[in-house]
Amino acid sequence: MSKLTIKTLAKELGLSIATVSKALKDSHEISTETKKKVLAMAEQLNYVPNPYASSLRKQKSKTIAVILPEVADNFFSLAINGIQAVAVQKNYHVLIYLSHESFEIEKAVVNHCYSGRVDGVLISISSETTNAEHIQKLQSENIPVVFFDREFESLEAPKVITNDYESGYLSAKLLLEKGCKHPVFLSTSLSLSICSKRAAGFAAALSDTGLQTNNYQYVVDCTGTQEMIFDQVKDLLQKHKEIDGIVASVERLAMQIYMVSLSGHINIPKDLKVVAFSTLETAPILNPSLTTITQPAFEIGKSAAEVLFTMIEKKKHSIMADTTVILPSTLIERDSTAV
Amino acid sequence: MSKLTIKTLAKELGLSIATVSKALKDSHEISTETKKKVLAMAEQLNYVPNPYASSLRKQKSKTIAVILPEVADNFFSLAINGIQAVAVQKNYHVLIYLSHESFEIEKAVVNHCYSGRVDGVLISISSETTNAEHIQKLQSENIPVVFFDREFESLEAPKVITNDYESGYLSAKLLLEKGCKHPVFLSTSLSLSICSKRAAGFAAALSDTGLQTNNYQYVVDCTGTQEMIFDQVKDLLQKHKEIDGIVASVERLAMQIYMVSLSGHINIPKDLKVVAFSTLETAPILNPSLTTITQPAFEIGKSAAEVLFTMIEKKKHSIMADTTVILPSTLIERDSTAV
Repeated sequence: MSKLTIKTLAKELGLSIATVSKALKDSHEISTETKKKVLAMAEQLNYVPNPYASSLRKQKSKTIAVILPEVADNFFSLAINGIQAVAVQKNYHVLIYLSHESFEIEKAVVNHCYSGRVDGVLISISSETTNAEHIQKLQSENIPVVFFDREFESLEAPKVITNDYESGYLSAKLLLEKGCKHPVFLSTSLSLSICSKRAAGFAAALSDTGLQTNNYQYVVDCTGTQEMIFDQVKDLLQKHKEIDGIVASVERLAMQIYMVSLSGHINIPKDLKVVAFSTLETAPILNPSLTTITQPAFEIGKSAAEVLFTMIEKKKHSIMADTTVILPSTLIERDSTAV
Repeated sequence: MSKLTIKTLAKELGLSIATVSKALKDSHEISTETKKKVLAMAEQLNYVPNPYASSLRKQKSKTIAVILPEVADNFFSLAINGIQAVAVQKNYHVLIYLSHESFEIEKAVVNHCYSGRVDGVLISISSETTNAEHIQKLQSENIPVVFFDREFESLEAPKVITNDYESGYLSAKLLLEKGCKHPVFLSTSLSLSICSKRAAGFAAALSDTGLQTNNYQYVVDCTGTQEMIFDQVKDLLQKHKEIDGIVASVERLAMQIYMVSLSGHINIPKDLKVVAFSTLETAPILNPSLTTITQPAFEIGKSAAEVLFTMIEKKKHSIMADTTVILPSTLIERDSTAV
């Protein structure tokens, strides 16, 4: 903790506390000469203004919080870079909090954002989150909140998302065009709107193509640690040898599909075609290269941060509440869906 | 900002401010009945204690900061998970700050950690960082600092690192055993001690094996954006067709070596053998699967956090200053170095 207060600094300089304080704030009331003297002494004595006291006065933290499930997913790493690109321009600090897909942790970190600690919050909810009271509380404290990627659909707040339904539709259509007769959608959590929308788009494509889907379960939930996902995928593919195509709703599912195929001598794409929602940089150098629905992760982060700063600067949170920015994803065909 | 103060709460309850304050702190001076009444009203009115005011009183933020270059690197994602595993147990919040490999940003975020905002700092320095004054200032303010992975060698502070020299040695030895005659070490920044140690180990192995190294540059610096790295690697391999083995000092260099080989019809491992310092989960499913020196990333994060909490709890920072924890990395041979 800093022991050196503005009082000590004033005493050392033989100036009043008010003068030193104004000089440090670059006030026009103070002469350039005095300012220089104060700053020189402040630097010499290693004076650091107390951020808490200073925040109490200014009611501005110059800090935003980003709450997201994990950073091991490439999507979130890129989104953070997009957020940071905007924050740096605005001279703001970015605090990153991870929920690790836990509702309890998410609530605890949201509670850490209250009362002047941050000026705004960007959030991508955990897969366990099924109610939004903790986020509503933030809003009621006048802290602006913007959702990116994983939104809470029924809550009124600005959202920056991608076209999940259409992407789900396209992914199924691709598998059907490549000759798949029993494609499945591997979901991570249907309570997440991104996942349920992707699944709905997937289902719609099957239905539109006239595929008989009443005799099999074409949306399969798959969660847990990497090892648990591996076991679930392995089990699924062993029990249902008719499955000839998979859409992985998130990146880490795709990795485990590849690991299972490696361990069980399943040939991708001959036996099984794979499409993944993923921004994985290694997609082109995987064996085989992976067909992806690539989300504009950096742009989603950037756009969400821009909306948040508009709210912070204009202090009109309510008029932004129905803002929804949709940035489309891109289907990139590679060898994992080759005929 | 919270408008509801403890004063309002006291007025609403018809109690003194001191009583309400003590009740909220679960003081033994207050009856259980009164406590229940206060808590119920606090919840009903959505009262949130002001963290700044509360921090000023308690001089404890219950928060630690993690400062690191990026999260797109899998090593850092895993290290963060290790740090968070310890922090959750201690009931601490973790703030993650990214330097994006910039010394200027690193200094700015370090400055954000002063004066009660955080109780301790875990740092992995940027590749541009060549002086440690900003970190020394933290220490002089009595904020404990622990380095993980990327340390600042000459600064006295606890360090949790891996055996970089030995790993560099092993990586070169493997390439030589597999028949390489002109192996090179791709460095990201020799000012980083992890990189210079890996390079030194690499050089020592060449020398021990009696390889003639005076006629070629076997350590090549390679930095910048992914595109810039791609161009540098491409250029290197085109100009020096004698290069038959590469050690990538960090993960993202390995990815670009693969991309260049893909674009330029260079066969890995026939024409070029590749070893990478990497915790990349996709290493086994790359084309070909990638031989790695895998750092114990999670454990490094966990151990660094444990050292930091010891310092925070014991308040004896100086006696920990010469603590160096070395957690060894593992060489995992895969197809990229096959004969």
